[in-house]
Parts: sequence; C-alpha cells; structure tokens
Amino acid sequence: MLFFGGDYNPEQWPEEVWAEDVALMRQAGVNIATVGVFSWSNLEPEPGRYEFGWLDRVLDRLHDGGVRVALATPTASPPPWFTLAHPEAMPAGADGIRLTHGSRDTYCVSAPAYRAAARNIAERLAERYAHHPALAMWHVHNEYGTDCRCDTTAAAFRTWLEKRHGDLDALNESWTTAFWSQRYSDWAQITPPRATQYLPNPAQVLDFRRFLSDELLGAYVEQRDLLRAANPDVPVTTNFVQGGWVSVDHARWAAEVDVVAVDHYPDDAGPGAEEETAFAGDLARGWGGGSWLLMETAPNLIYTRGRMHAKEPGRLTRHSLGYVARGSRGAMYFQWRQPRGGAELFHSALVPHAGPDSPVFREAVGLGRTLRGLAPVASALPPVAQVALTWDAPSWWALQAPALPSADIDYPGAVRQAHRALFRAKIQTDFVFPGMSTGLGGYRLVVAPHLYLVSDEAAAAFRDYVAAGGHLVVTYLSGIAEPDTRVRLGGYPGAFREVLGVRVVEWHPQPADRTFALDDGTPVSRWIERVETAGAETISRYADGPLAGAPAITRHRYGQGAAWYVSTSFGDDGLRALLTRIAAEAGVEPVLPGLPDQVEAVRRGDLMFLFNHGITPARVGEVTIPAGGVRFTPAR
Amino acid sequence: MLFFGGDYNPEQWPEEVWAEDVALMRQAGVNIATVGVFSWSNLEPEPGRYEFGWLDRVLDRLHDGGVRVALATPTASPPPWFTLAHPEAMPAGADGIRLTHGSRDTYCVSAPAYRAAARNIAERLAERYAHHPALAMWHVHNEYGTDCRCDTTAAAFRTWLEKRHGDLDALNESWTTAFWSQRYSDWAQITPPRATQYLPNPAQVLDFRRFLSDELLGAYVEQRDLLRAANPDVPVTTNFVQGGWVSVDHARWAAEVDVVAVDHYPDDAGPGAEEETAFAGDLARGWGGGSWLLMETAPNLIYTRGRMHAKEPGRLTRHSLGYVARGSRGAMYFQWRQPRGGAELFHSALVPHAGPDSPVFREAVGLGRTLRGLAPVASALPPVAQVALTWDAPSWWALQAPALPSADIDYPGAVRQAHRALFRAKIQTDFVFPGMSTGLGGYRLVVAPHLYLVSDEAAAAFRDYVAAGGHLVVTYLSGIAEPDTRVRLGGYPGAFREVLGVRVVEWHPQPADRTFALDDGTPVSRWIERVETAGAETISRYADGPLAGAPAITRHRYGQGAAWYVSTSFGDDGLRALLTRIAAEAGVEPVLPGLPDQVEAVRRGDLMFLFNHGITPARVGEVTIPAGGVRFTPAR
Amino acid sequence: MLFFGGDYNPEQWPEEVWAEDVALMRQAGVNIATVGVFSWSNLEPEPGRYEFGWLDRVLDRLHDGGVRVALATPTASPPPWFTLAHPEAMPAGADGIRLTHGSRDTYCVSAPAYRAAARNIAERLAERYAHHPALAMWHVHNEYGTDCRCDTTAAAFRTWLEKRHGDLDALNESWTTAFWSQRYSDWAQITPPRATQYLPNPAQVLDFRRFLSDELLGAYVEQRDLLRAANPDVPVTTNFVQGGWVSVDHARWAAEVDVVAVDHYPDDAGPGAEEETAFAGDLARGWGGGSWLLMETAPNLIYTRGRMHAKEPGRLTRHSLGYVARGSRGAMYFQWRQPRGGAELFHSALVPHAGPDSPVFREAVGLGRTLRGLAPVASALPPVAQVALTWDAPSWWALQAPALPSADIDYPGAVRQAHRALFRAKIQTDFVFPGMSTGLGGYRLVVAPHLYLVSDEAAAAFRDYVAAGGHLVVTYLSGIAEPDTRVRLGGYPGAFREVLGVRVVEWHPQPADRTFALDDGTPVSRWIERVETAGAETISRYADGPLAGAPAITRHRYGQGAAWYVSTSFGDDGLRALLTRIAAEAGVEPVLPGLPDQVEAVRRGDLMFLFNHGITPARVGEVTIPAGGVRFTPAR
Repeated sequence: MLFFGGDYNPEQWPEEVWAEDVALMRQAGVNIATVGVFSWSNLEPEPGRYEFGWLDRVLDRLHDGGVRVALATPTASPPPWFTLAHPEAMPAGADGIRLTHGSRDTYCVSAPAYRAAARNIAERLAERYAHHPALAMWHVHNEYGTDCRCDTTAAAFRTWLEKRHGDLDALNESWTTAFWSQRYSDWAQITPPRATQYLPNPAQVLDFRRFLSDELLGAYVEQRDLLRAANPDVPVTTNFVQGGWVSVDHARWAAEVDVVAVDHYPDDAGPGAEEETAFAGDLARGWGGGSWLLMETAPNLIYTRGRMHAKEPGRLTRHSLGYVARGSRGAMYFQWRQPRGGAELFHSALVPHAGPDSPVFREAVGLGRTLRGLAPVASALPPVAQVALTWDAPSWWALQAPALPSADIDYPGAVRQAHRALFRAKIQTDFVFPGMSTGLGGYRLVVAPHLYLVSDEAAAAFRDYVAAGGHLVVTYLSGIAEPDTRVRLGGYPGAFREVLGVRVVEWHPQPADRTFALDDGTPVSRWIERVETAGAETISRYADGPLAGAPAITRHRYGQGAAWYVSTSFGDDGLRALLTRIAAEAGVEPVLPGLPDQVEAVRRGDLMFLFNHGITPARVGEVTIPAGGVRFTPAR
Repeated sequence: MLFFGGDYNPEQWPEEVWAEDVALMRQAGVNIATVGVFSWSNLEPEPGRYEFGWLDRVLDRLHDGGVRVALATPTASPPPWFTLAHPEAMPAGADGIRLTHGSRDTYCVSAPAYRAAARNIAERLAERYAHHPALAMWHVHNEYGTDCRCDTTAAAFRTWLEKRHGDLDALNESWTTAFWSQRYSDWAQITPPRATQYLPNPAQVLDFRRFLSDELLGAYVEQRDLLRAANPDVPVTTNFVQGGWVSVDHARWAAEVDVVAVDHYPDDAGPGAEEETAFAGDLARGWGGGSWLLMETAPNLIYTRGRMHAKEPGRLTRHSLGYVARGSRGAMYFQWRQPRGGAELFHSALVPHAGPDSPVFREAVGLGRTLRGLAPVASALPPVAQVALTWDAPSWWALQAPALPSADIDYPGAVRQAHRALFRAKIQTDFVFPGMSTGLGGYRLVVAPHLYLVSDEAAAAFRDYVAAGGHLVVTYLSGIAEPDTRVRLGGYPGAFREVLGVRVVEWHPQPADRTFALDDGTPVSRWIERVETAGAETISRYADGPLAGAPAITRHRYGQGAAWYVSTSFGDDGLRALLTRIAAEAGVEPVLPGLPDQVEAVRRGDLMFLFNHGITPARVGEVTIPAGGVRFTPAR
Repeated sequence: MLFFGGDYNPEQWPEEVWAEDVALMRQAGVNIATVGVFSWSNLEPEPGRYEFGWLDRVLDRLHDGGVRVALATPTASPPPWFTLAHPEAMPAGADGIRLTHGSRDTYCVSAPAYRAAARNIAERLAERYAHHPALAMWHVHNEYGTDCRCDTTAAAFRTWLEKRHGDLDALNESWTTAFWSQRYSDWAQITPPRATQYLPNPAQVLDFRRFLSDELLGAYVEQRDLLRAANPDVPVTTNFVQGGWVSVDHARWAAEVDVVAVDHYPDDAGPGAEEETAFAGDLARGWGGGSWLLMETAPNLIYTRGRMHAKEPGRLTRHSLGYVARGSRGAMYFQWRQPRGGAELFHSALVPHAGPDSPVFREAVGLGRTLRGLAPVASALPPVAQVALTWDAPSWWALQAPALPSADIDYPGAVRQAHRALFRAKIQTDFVFPGMSTGLGGYRLVVAPHLYLVSDEAAAAFRDYVAAGGHLVVTYLSGIAEPDTRVRLGGYPGAFREVLGVRVVEWHPQPADRTFALDDGTPVSRWIERVETAGAETISRYADGPLAGAPAITRHRYGQGAAWYVSTSFGDDGLRALLTRIAAEAGVEPVLPGLPDQVEAVRRGDLMFLFNHGITPARVGEVTIPAGGVRFTPAR
C-alpha cells in the first residue's frame, strides 16, 4: 500500500466539519492523516490539564473511516502558558533578544523546562494512543531546525565541545584562536556565536551548527525512546526539512528514524520544479538507504519567492508520482483542508477554501485512484544507480562563512546543478555522504562538487575508489580544508591533490557577468583558477582571460580508474555535455536510451514510470504519453 | 476666508527675526500660523517649570499683525527630562528595545506618566490661551501614529480585546489560535505582536492595529475635551498623516475632530504629483463629509524617494488651489521659515535659507493674492460626485500580512490606480467607507478595489445598493474575509459572490513581468484567477496563459442594477477604458465634456477651477489657460 | 632604506615554521615585520599571567635574520577573559545591545577597565622590549575606529561637550534643540545618538563623531606616552584606516604620530585600483607633511565587493612602487603568511596557502630586489605640487546625515572624482585640510569639492588666498554650514558667496539617470541649481532642463586671483576637461608633458617613476616601459 493523505487539523474546525472530512477522504482514497502536529495548546490548555476527548473522537472517526493516523507529538510549538511559566526557555538570538510565543517553534531546545514539558506531553500521548488501532506511525515534533544562543545553550555547547575536543589546547588549535586574540583560557569563556564587532570565527560557527544538529537530535531521541517503549511495533519518525537556515545534518539523523520522512517544497514555478522534485527524491532516498516517505508537499501550489504559483492541471499528479517513483512510500501533503485563519491561511490544501467543488480536489480524487493501482510497487525499491553525487552538510555550512573568496559560492546550487545535468542526460543518480561511512564501491562514477571539508579518511576512501577502477569528478573548492575548517597547505585542492594529480596555486573568482571560453569553445564563468598539473593530463584549457593557456579541466589516470578536476563553473549545457562524456567513459548507461528531452523515466521495482513534462504528447517505444501525463510500462 | 499660512516655529529663532516674520507674512497675505507643535521643551523646560513669556509675545505679535493662530499642544515630542523621569514611558519595539529621546514621538501612548504629562501641558495652554484673541483653532499633538509593544501597552491591549471579544473562547475562535498551538488559556498570555520565531498571527496583528488606532484616539479625545472645556467656541483638530506605518483609521477619527485636517506630501515628481493631490483632496473630503483643511504640505519641494525635487514655477500655486478646489478651507504649509539646524534643516519653507528674495517666496506672495480673491468660495462645498471609491483602512492593514498569495498586493496602490483612471477620465470621485455607516445610495457607480474585509452588514448594503439600481465594480481580493480576517468559505469573493454572480476557485498570482491578453486585446498582468460564472454574463475572457478561455470580467444584472467583477490587474490605460465604459453605462457624466487631457476641472460652489498641468496653453470653451496655470470660470 | 615586509603572526604557527619564515624573508629581502598586533590572549592568557617567552624567541630570531620589528601593542582585541571580567567594558550599539568577544575590537574605549588593561599590557611590552635591538618602531593598537553608545561613553561625551560648548545654552543653540522639543535642561539628559523614533539631530551626530575621534586619540596618546617614556628614541605610530564608518579625523591625528602609517585596500579591480592607489598616497602624504608609510595593503588580491580579485602579474609591484613614489617610506603588507584558520583565512599574503612555490612569492622576491635598489630615494620627499585638493572629515560626516536633499551625495566620491580628473590630466596633486591651519599660499590652484562645513576663519583664508592671486574651484554643497552644521543664511554657498560672486537660491537634485547639457555641450547630471551671479561672469549655462539659460559655471575675478563655481556634477571626461582648462589658466604644469594616457609619472627626489598601467608597451622620451611595467629615469 502507498500512503496517500496529509496533515489534518480538525481542532481548527467545528466538529460538524469532521464528518465531511472523513467522507471526502474516502472519496479521494486518502488512507493516512497526520494529526496533532501543532495541538499542544489544545491537548494541554493549562499546565497539567489535558483535553484528550476531541483527539479520541478524531482518531476513532478516522479509524471508522478506514484512515490510518500518523500521530504527532506537538512539541514544535509550546502553548502560550509555557512562555509565562518558563521565560528562560524561550530562544534568544545572537543579540541576546529573547523571542516570545505568537508564532511557532518558540523554545530553546537546551532548556531543561522545555525538554521536560516535551517529554511529558509525548508520554501522555504514548500512554493513551500507543495501541490505538488507527495508529500507523509516530511523527515526532515538526521540522527540527531551531537555533538559540542563550546561556543555557552556551553551557550545553561547552559540554559538547569538551567531548569533541578533549581539552582547551586542542580547541584553541582547532579553532585557530591565535587569530584576533581569541585564545580561551577557561571553558566558561566560550559561547555560541553572538553579536560581536566584526567577522566571527568560522570554526566556532561550524562547531556550533554541528552542536545544534546533535542537540536537536538528542531531543528527538528522547521522545522516540519514550514512544518506542510504549509500543515497540509502531515506527517512529520526524519530518526532515531543508533550507540554509536549518542546523540539522539529515545524513546523520537518518539512522535514528524508522523511516526517513521528508517535507519538500520546490520553489521554481517553471520546469525547475520537476528537477527539484527529482533532486529531493534522490537525496531522501540516499538518506533512507533506498526507502523514504514524502511527508509534506503543497498539493496545488508552488511557493516561489514572493508568489504562490498555482500548479497547472496534472502537475499535482506528476509531482506526486515523481516522488513515488524515486522510492517514496506514498504521497502526503500539507494539508488536508485549507484553514480559515492563522498565519498560513493561504497555504495549499487538498480541500481549498472553495471546497471540494474545485480543480485540486478533483485531481486528488484521480490521483488516489492511481496510487491504489500502484500498490504492488510499494514494497519495491528503486535500483542502485551507477552514478553518485556527494552531499555534505558541514561543507555547505562552512561555505556559508562571510569572508570567502567570492560571495557567489553556492554549495547546494553546485550540487543541484550537477544533479540537473545528470537528470537532463537521463542518468539516474544516487547520493553518498562522504562524512559518513557510505561506500563508493558500487558506483561507476562519483561526482563531488564543492566538497570543501574532507577528512583524511574520506580522502583515502576516494583514492581507494579510483585506484580500484572508479571514476571521480571533483570540482573547484573541494578538498580545501580539514573537517574543522583548517586549510590544507601546499596547494589546493588539498585532500584531492594526489588523486587528481594537480596543484592549484591561485584562485581567480570572477564577477557573474564575465564569461570566458575554454579551448573547445565552452563558455565558463564565476570562477577560474591557476592549475598546475602534476601527473594529470590537460583535457581543456582556458582560451582567454587572465589564465589563457592554462589547464581548466584535467584527467588523472590513477590505479585502475580516473579522476577529473574541474577548475571552473559551467553553464547547464556545458556541464551536461561534460558529465555525459565522462559518464560514457565510465560506462554509465542512461535509464532508457533515446528518451525525448521532455520525458523523464524512473524505474522502481519492475515498473518504469514515464513522465511527460512537456506540453505536447511524447512517444517512448510503444507508449504515447499525453502532454503533462504519466504512463507506466514494465521495466526491462 | 480661506486660510493661508503654515507651521511657524519662532522658538528656533532669535526674537529679532520675529518682526521680519510678521512683516513678510503680511506681505504674502498669510492669515494663519500654526504655533507650538514641538515646543514642549521650551514651554516646560523642567518638570513643572513653565516658560510662557515667549509664546505670549509671539501670539500678541501675530495678533497685532493680523495673523490668527492654530495653537498646538506640543505632546508629540516630550522633552528630554521626561525620558529620565519616566523611562518606562518610552516606546518599545517588537524586540523589546526601548527607544529614547533624540528625535520626536518618543513616548508610549498607553503609559500613564505620558498621558498625565500630556494632559497637564495641554491644560496649562488651555488655561492661558483659550481666550486669546489670535486663537483660531486648537491643533492637538502632531500626526498621531506611533507604535509601542511594551508591557503597559500589552495590558491596555488586553482590556481592549476583552471589550471587543467578550471572552477568551471568542478570541481564540476569532484569531484561529488552534493554528500553531496559540490557544490562550489566560488573558495574561496575550501580548502585542512581538519578536517571535516565524510568521505572526494575522488576526492578532490586525486587532493590534485597530487597538493602536483606538488608543491613540483616546489620547486625542482626552486633550480635546480639556481644550473644549476651556472654551467651547474654539474648534479642535489634529492633523492626519497617511502612510503604511500609521496605525490610525482616519475614517473613524473624523467624527471626533471639528475639522478634518490633513498633512499631504505627494511623492512623485512627475504628473503623478497632481494625481496624488487630487486623490488626497478627495479622500480628505470624504473623511470630512465635504469639508476639510490642508494643514501641511511642502511649499516648493516634492519629497521623492531619496531626492528633494524642486517644484517648477507655478506648481506651488496649482497644487494649493487643487486642494482648495476639492474642498479644503485653505492652504497651509510646513513651514514658514526654513530652519538653520535640526533633522529637517532642508525641509521646504515659504521663506527659504536664501530669504524672501527667492522664487518660492515670490510665488507665495502671488498665491496669497489669489486666495484672497477666492474668499467667496470658502463657504461652498464641492458637489456630491456621481462615483464613489471605497477606502477601508483595516483591509489595507490586513493586506500587509506577510504570507499573502503575492508580495505584489498593494491596497493603496489599487485604490490610487482606480482614482487615477477616473481622474484621467475627467470624472469627479468621492470616497465611501464600507466599515462605517456611509450610505451608497447617492452614487450612480461605486468602485471597490481589493475590499478584502467585508462584514455581513456591509455585504448586504452593497447588495441593496445594486438591487436598487446602483452600479458596482468589485476587483479581485474583495470580500475574501470577515472583518477579523477569517476567510469566507465556498469560493471567492465570499461576501460578494451573490451580488456578482461568480465563484472563484483558484488564484493565479503572476510575476510582474508576465503579461496576458484579454480577448479584446487589453493587456493584464500580476494576477489572474479561475472564475466560474453563476448568474453573471462574461464580458471578456483570458485570451492566453493558463486560464485561456475562462472569464476575466463579468457583469451581473442584479435587481435594478448591475455588478461587475474584475478578476485581474490592468494597466492604467486599460483600467481607464474599462471604468469609462462602465461609468457610461451607469449614466455618469464627466465634470466638463471635451476637456483636453492636460486640463483638470473641479467644481466648488459656483466656481469651476481649471488647471492646466501641461507645458502648452490649453483652451476650454472661451477660456485660455496658460501652461502650468489656473483659471476660474462660473460653474454651470 | 625602504621598508619591505608586513604583518607577521608566528603565534598562529608551530615553532618549526618560524625558521622557514625567516629564511623566506631573507630570500625576499624582507627587512621589517609587524609583530603582535592581535597577540593579547597569547601574551596575557589570564589576567596578570604573562607569556612573553614565545615573543622573545620570535624577536630574537627575526633580529638574527636581519629583520627589524614594528612591535604592536595588542589592544585592538582584548582576550575572552576580559569580557567575563568586565562586561561593562564591552561596546554597546545605538540600541543598547552589548557586543561580546568572538571577533576583534570588542571594547568600549571610554571604559576605565579597558583603558587600564590596555595601558598595562602596553607597559609590560615597553618594559620588556623598548630596548630590544630588533625594535624599529612601536605600532600602537590597530586601525582605531570603534564606536560605542553605552552610559560610560555618554558620560565621557558630556565631559567633551562641556569643554566644547561651555554651557547648556550654547549647546542648545548650536544643536538647534528648539527643533522637535529637544532642548536640554540638564547635562545628564544628553546621550550619544541612540535608537530613537525617527531622524536624529545632525549636530548631535556630528559632535559625537568628533568626540569619538578625540576619545580614541586619547587612548592612543596614553599608550604612546608610556612607550616613549620607556625609550624616547623609538618612533611610535598607529595604522590609519579609512572607511565611512571610521570616526577618526586623521588630519587631526597626524600631529600625534611619529610617522603617518596607513592601511590601504583599493576596492576596484579595474584601472580604478591604480587611481585609488594614487589617491591614497597623495592623501597620506598630506597627513604626513610629505612623508608617510604604507603599513598594510593586500599583496596579491583586490577586495572588491563580494569578490577577491587576484592581481595580474606585475600589479603587486606597480601598486607597491606607486605608494613609494608618492612618498611612502616603504611597502608593507597584510600579511606575511596566509593563515590556516580564523575569520580572514583567505586574506592575501606574501606566502600563500600554496607556499613559496607560487606566483605571489616569486613576484615578492623580485620586488624586494627593486626596493633595495631604490634605497637612495628613501630620504627624499616628493616635491610640493602646484594643485591642492581639500579634504575635510567633518564635512564628510555631516554629508552622511539621513535627510539631505539627495541620497546620492557622496563626499569622498566627489573628492576622488576631482583627484581622478587631475590624475588623468597628469597633474600632481596635494591635499590640504581646511579645518586645520594648512596654508594654501604655495598652490597655484585649490579645488574644494563639497566643502560643506566652513568656519569663518577658513572662509577668510580662502578669500585671502584668491585675493593674493590664487585660483580656487568650489563645487556645489560647499560653504553651506558652519562647523556645527547650522546653515548660513541668505543664499548658498554661504561662506563662499563673496569670493565666488554668486548666490544660489534653489537646489534641484536630479535622479542619477537624468542628464542635462551645458551650452558647450558637456553633459551633467545628479544636481543642478539656480545660480544668480553677483559679480561673477558666467562661463557656461544650462542648455536644457528646468534651469535652461541659467548660469552653471561661473568665474569671479577677486583681487589678484579668480574663483570658479561649479553648480553641477560632471562625468569624468567633463570634469577632466574643465579642470585642465582651469589649471592652464592658473599656470599649472603637468608632471611631464606629452605622457601617453596609460602612463603615470611621479617624481620623488631626483627620480621620475614611470608606470605603464596599459597592456601594450609605452614610450616616454628615450624610455620604453613594458606593458604593466615600471621604469625610473632621472627627474628634471
């Protein structure tokens, strides 16, 4: 069975609406509802006084209607009474200003009072519902990712640092505190990054982000263990959310959830939405080791910058099946019914303000039918791909530092561009996580964009991979620093110098509007560097600009394999051409040969999903896919 | 008599300048001076120690010179000593940071200490000057519109909320606090919107703006009553200022002032300044029930974004007479004499730094003469127009929320555009205030742009108006929500569905640079929506884009009248053409037939004002108006 | 001898690197190292516990290697322990938020605890190293220029104000506190500019900047006196840094240092870098009375907005010799060795991450050789120029006020443009400081752009200069106000009206994209004004726009000289043509006649430096200068 459903907030509606909800869910084939995500103030309106009656009725009604429940602990948003009882548990910014309730996520995750209150409400829910027949899974909290810089946080940070660094000398060394007179002579002097006069210490900033990820994970694990103890048979998860501000390294969290659950909101209203969907699905599958669950997406809207774009007819279906094809156990949405009030009153829903007599609800009904037909595929995983991309949250974080050589450095942008190039080349792609113990051995080609922080162990693993016959592509800004941000000396790209057979002696970041040509005519921009080969052969050179004549792309035969270095930034077409060539050399095959540009093909189990993202019908073998449509064929 | 004068700040000048001031006022025909607006620290330099001697001399001197006085209470800017005596009465931002003196407007209007000090200085002034022969009116405070989020304010807000909502259950329901776990279980938990983690509750934000308006009004009324008690014959007012940040609903304040006084500063240096002048005059006349007073404008500058534009010769005159034609009881300026120092040392004045031997003073002398000639018109009001536009401050405020479907939504922009279209079509326009008890009956046509919040009563009034033969134009984003921001379900535009005979099931906000065509060729942009007719006839359809073929503009015969729905955003030319057509259907006539584009005609009493805003002479009937000039003819 | 070297931070490196450092310094000919700039936490890791051993070894090692030392007091960055011991000595912003350590410069310069700790560490260093044989000079602190608004600062500000203004009445008058009710009745009411409701008082803001400059100077002088007392033979300096945020009036500081030391970082990657280098060198020479020292610049990078531009080969040499030609006693860099960590880990260095086998180090070796060859010039000063430009920090500060007539006003931009025009006209330029007692007598031409604040004394000096035969060019926004920002009445440009023989009655600031023509065809933009001549002759008029026909440029024969008024803003070409014409009238000669555009010539002592900034070889007389190269010829 594939899950189909989404967030359901009956507490926002009079009870007479609930009956219509269940009837409409049945009409649409909805089989799961996420309940209780932000219900704390309705479950515990005053400290220690609980109101579970309404939730009992909701769960029973859903159960009677054949809808299972992902029951949430409501700890992402403490009630207003919590603020008044525990002002010290409110989060504080870098400037020391404490936030207050009035939105959501107002808590300091390190505050003992918050942790105790969160454990308590989770335990009350576990006690009452752990054996409820409707319960399909626990959904802990919501989108972990808050930040606090208060004194309680500082104390927790210091404890974490002591465990990581051992003693102050090691920390001083790792953070280069000799710079700008920052040497610590007592643990008590160390705080989170706070408002200060000028640039912060990047090693301190990075360690703080790692700490926050671990601290939030600790809060999750605490709840998970309580819930598991109440009924070990119910899987527990929490929904991962992405974004530059989120201090969570999901690759490290994945081991602690029973299923990787992901919220995904593409932000491009054009064809980019489909490429973002593919990217999100592949990355989530990497975290989940093949399997995962789309926990939230917007049914009929794409949230672009400053504008809610209405999806075209069929696009809800295409996106939803895109996630499923890439391994999701279902398709779930935020949310079931569009609210009448609250901060997100125009957020997308399956049942919009206009009611079920609306395009989105009609499309949902059809989608539910399609998903029921796909039930057999639910237990199958997509095959392991031949190509892997690296993803490394600490490198991303480190490349958000303020005083980098260029303000245009964009870690996720670089990974997304590489994924987009492979997507357009119809090559299926996995993700690997070099900071973890992911093996590279199974892949014919590994692509590492901007892999800035690399440990000695990871560097060795890449060397071994290539020596054993693997193909590796490394782009500029990779291998630069040790995991604590200290630069590797002697020439960039430090950790990769040996396997790449190159040495970079100077960076030449460029304004975005300046373009150079390689000697094969390919335009490049934004970044060029002075590369000296040291074993590698030069594949192409800069044809103009300050580095005219110098190597731009190199290939190094190393053991049984080959390692490519890309010292500059390509446009989408150039990168697609380059990766297509390298993939061919590495023996990588496309998902299906001869696919039209507008068609995406993804194999899951013994089914091939064929998506036509174009505005005209497309033909693949015997199959005609209507414009904007999806078809299924048996996989080879 | 028409007032001619402006703000006069003799306390900034040595006493020897005062004689020259009065002489120059006489030369220019100035007959009123606003005195004392920011004089608190000079009137009460230490708590309880008063220095009235200088003001006595100023008033006597003005009186001797034949200049009357709008005497201000100086409460908009407490002296520095007040900050030190009452730090708790300084305003605090959403982040809790208290401001301090050093500018103006540094007070929390809810602070008892501030209110007491303000009443006291107002009373001292009333005692001393209520029967001064120069006194023409009281000018309370200045440009009410401050904001504070401190604990004192919070307490006042809660009192206001209790009165509005009755009990907590009603408030929780009205604010949809079930969303994001915001349910309040004690009044003490409620605060003004403060720094929080993410989006605020829009109903809380809107109620806080309403509260601020009422709270400021309370402070005004307190002073007004004291002044009235001292001499019931002297009219009392306060100068209204507009701007997105001002939490004052002037339509509700108008009933509490003896004359609606308005500060107006256009911000467009091009022809837009004349259109803004017309808009401001019409809106002020609406507040004032036909009559009002221009209390401040800049004599010779237009403050555009980042630049002080010098008005072209004749423009001071044209703008000033523009206000008068639209019902102002005079023309007053900020300010009389340009200061040597202070934060606004380059603000415009009738006597600039260069002195009276200057273009602005020379034009002022001529304008004074013209105004004296217009004295007979002073007691006449402009006629009631045939068209009314709606203006609703709470809708504006609600459409400033952060998570709307499009960041381009611009309530005042939409109303201004509709006014501009009518202005260019030479159609005189009134304003009505649907949140108030304004009648619609007198108008042939009512235009409601983005009338987002509509009560059941207001919706019924619109239906009755149309049923009785009125013509109504409603644009998208109207009728969406109840006055507390809760969305009306079943399809947009909720409150207007019946009278319009349409149902909107999906919004499609668009990027500003994307243009679509209607089937009559008119270009539209920024917003389109999926309209289903339910009784209405389709007037034009979308010719391209995602909604090609669907209705764009509809007309619904309803009772004796007709109601038009406009589901998209036009350019200025398109809107002018559309409103011209609808106005013709409604039997609306232009002010004068056959006016050249560059000429504006406004009737007041039995006089027709003819403004030539062009750079060539224009002819209207027998009359030739020189470029940039103004002429008067008898009105029909 | 010319200094060659830069900042050296051995405390960031293991001791085994030090030997390589000295060896590489010898290889490059480095003869000076700035040591200890940010070493406080390494010198005094806990309050009162000192670790001088490492510094002893560094100085001895440098001395043994023939490298002299500019020894810094480390007071620009107190150690973390200082924050915990003296939270009240951390700087506070205008909003009252105290910053904390974690970067650099975290101190309130008025805090007694900071001042005591700074004196103490300076004294300890003086005690230990004042007679060290390696010691070439003391380098106090680093780039003075911090800001604090705390209560301690407020008290110091009041003391400074009492000294400046005498009594409160004078201050109230000078600050025009009658405006907006800001009259002070007690000194205790006065604070630094702090978070307030709206625009601040510009006179208060300007006095606060003056106070900060003096307060920081006091902190410097305290240290200097201690160091001098320890060994009167060692020169003492501090490195001046420029920037809009720096509250230091370097012209006033120059008298307190033994050598004017300047940090200079151009920010234009194009040819502007060379023009900025010339500007910085000329301005520094003005401060230093002919001689100065480049204390820091980036060896191989130009820090443009958002991007670190790598210098082209030869540019390090060209820039370095550019400073020397304009009077610098050497060429010093930030920094010797690129760090592995810390906030500036990608900041430029002579020994980069790649190590000495790198383009920058190789160029440095050659440059060291060249500088040794130039040793004879070290004792010579450049000749006094025939043209002087005015520079006035208080005018700059005053023109940063928020409510000026145009947001485009750019004081340093205007001075730089005038300098650039003269640079391109091959005219050598000095700087004079009208707020100081600089004489003007020696110059044939003085150019005063935007000289906004002018005292009566300075105005008289300009009149006397012209009367005695000098030529003066004054641009708009000059002479407007007295030094306390109070506007001079009767017509702009107040203080210069008499000498210029003009009277300006109206300003017409213009949007940047609107261009007008003068009657000779020259395009102008951004600012025009209504000029009335009063003795001056009109040189050119506005040909179009609102002031068509009115004077734009005037010349006034005054005594034996002539004074020109420029009422508008030219492009670079127009200004170069105008200043070339006026210079010719004034009898000014270029450095060398007939220089190609791409060649810069600067005379120092009996040597002519010839810089070819072009990309083709250039010929000057007998000499061919290769593209990007430098040649020396005997000066006439």
